[in-house]
Amino acid sequence: MRRIGGIEAGGTKFVCGVGNERGEIEEKISFPTQDPETTLDRAIGYFRDKRVEAVGIGSFGPVDLDPSSPYYGYITTTPKPGWSQIDFLGTMKRALNVPCGWDTDVNAAAWGELRWGAARGLDSCVYYTIGTGVGMGAVVGGRRVHGLVHPESGHIPVRRHAEDAFAGVCPYHGDCLEGMASGPAVAKRWNRAGADLPADHPAWALEAYYIGQAVIATILMLSPHKIILGGGVMKQRQLFPAIREEVRKGLNGYVNSVRVAEEIDDYIVPPGLGDNAGLCGALALALEALEGAG
Amino acid sequence: MRRIGGIEAGGTKFVCGVGNERGEIEEKISFPTQDPETTLDRAIGYFRDKRVEAVGIGSFGPVDLDPSSPYYGYITTTPKPGWSQIDFLGTMKRALNVPCGWDTDVNAAAWGELRWGAARGLDSCVYYTIGTGVGMGAVVGGRRVHGLVHPESGHIPVRRHAEDAFAGVCPYHGDCLEGMASGPAVAKRWNRAGADLPADHPAWALEAYYIGQAVIATILMLSPHKIILGGGVMKQRQLFPAIREEVRKGLNGYVNSVRVAEEIDDYIVPPGLGDNAGLCGALALALEALEGAG
Repeated sequence: MRRIGGIEAGGTKFVCGVGNERGEIEEKISFPTQDPETTLDRAIGYFRDKRVEAVGIGSFGPVDLDPSSPYYGYITTTPKPGWSQIDFLGTMKRALNVPCGWDTDVNAAAWGELRWGAARGLDSCVYYTIGTGVGMGAVVGGRRVHGLVHPESGHIPVRRHAEDAFAGVCPYHGDCLEGMASGPAVAKRWNRAGADLPADHPAWALEAYYIGQAVIATILMLSPHKIILGGGVMKQRQLFPAIREEVRKGLNGYVNSVRVAEEIDDYIVPPGLGDNAGLCGALALALEALEGAG
Repeated sequence: MRRIGGIEAGGTKFVCGVGNERGEIEEKISFPTQDPETTLDRAIGYFRDKRVEAVGIGSFGPVDLDPSSPYYGYITTTPKPGWSQIDFLGTMKRALNVPCGWDTDVNAAAWGELRWGAARGLDSCVYYTIGTGVGMGAVVGGRRVHGLVHPESGHIPVRRHAEDAFAGVCPYHGDCLEGMASGPAVAKRWNRAGADLPADHPAWALEAYYIGQAVIATILMLSPHKIILGGGVMKQRQLFPAIREEVRKGLNGYVNSVRVAEEIDDYIVPPGLGDNAGLCGALALALEALEGAG
């Protein structure tokens, strides 16, 4: 068995782990995301004596994914203090001296789910994380979606619900998807953390309404074979049937696929890898780096 | 030079043409889309003595693009009378006895623009046609986007403009993008065909508002290297600066790319191939079929 490492680098916490080419995690640790030097040093320290052959990194963003760019491997212009223009990939490569894979945290999660999770055997899927922020990763035609930058669907415009007067919390857009449906949006709208609201609180119908819109736009724009919804907010499992119902109503029979029409319970799903989607995806990135280093 | 054929099969008219592997069109005809038998017979008749080595078809949809499906090559459940469950690709292959390529009309247009037009040399682009309907085709990572079905972004939800009380014309969704911004939507909202409205009519600011939203959602979801806007409505060239302004305002600096921040005039553009984007794309599909046929 190969011995590989993964880093799921979130804006709030880092998860570092060791696993193998089956996506099995042997051990992992997590620690809060502090300033870049402290945080990357801690990740480097963790891997120092782990004898891994490669490390994959799925990072919060925005990141530079263009191998021809001088800033490839950097976190670029994040509003997170201290983290702008940080050479994440280069720092890890130099310190660990093994091949390192690199992508966004959410592209990594989508990649992990495609390889070992809910989208196994398919050639496309979309992964949304709905938590402190809203992020989206996508695989299309067997490849992770990179482009001008990378997907940022957490910030798509959404239609405000007629009974929702909440201004939204996004510093850029106010009432975009993240502004209306992230964990902090729920907490601010109801003056209580989502985890403390009962399952039948009206918060969740609103939440399903906004997330449902994002899923509808995603189906119409990308037509993925599976839509996976993860992150802290989606621990509220009552959201799944409510979101599926919003999608069914919103599409109104337009998309001619039995997957959407009759098998939606198996189409819009939680991560097959649970909380390990991001870390497993990072392992898959490590494997890819190893193959590339051939 | 190779001699190849292309069919741009729209819901309103068919364009058939002959060209070469440089995307140069030597001749073409167009005729109205009638019932399937009459229309396909006419296309077959056109190619009968043209001695083409292959034919590419970009068709209105929804179509079946899954090579493993028994209905691959069919137009599936279109509301267009008579055209449901029509074996378009099979009919052409049997009649013409040459390799035939197959995709949606808008994926073909995106493909043509990537090969010979405004997105030449890039590995991703999105093509919107805004006319009788609104359609979207996309290339991501050098491949046309296929999935569960294919992109149908003409029907994404949009935020209604505060001063717009128009109900929308989409039979499925009412006020989706197509319902609010297609040619028939403009005509019904203002009781006059768009072509008859002056360039400074308020219709166009509204139009830019809705199309701008679609472009914003597209940038955030797919991060394409180029966005191409074609179709009858986009003949109103004053829409381009207005749409770019909506996109700039809507993204509000969030997407960290010089293409969007400073080079937007070269990022959101009309088709480089003009009205031939779809037909050229069909030629590119023919070439692909020829290569696939070895």
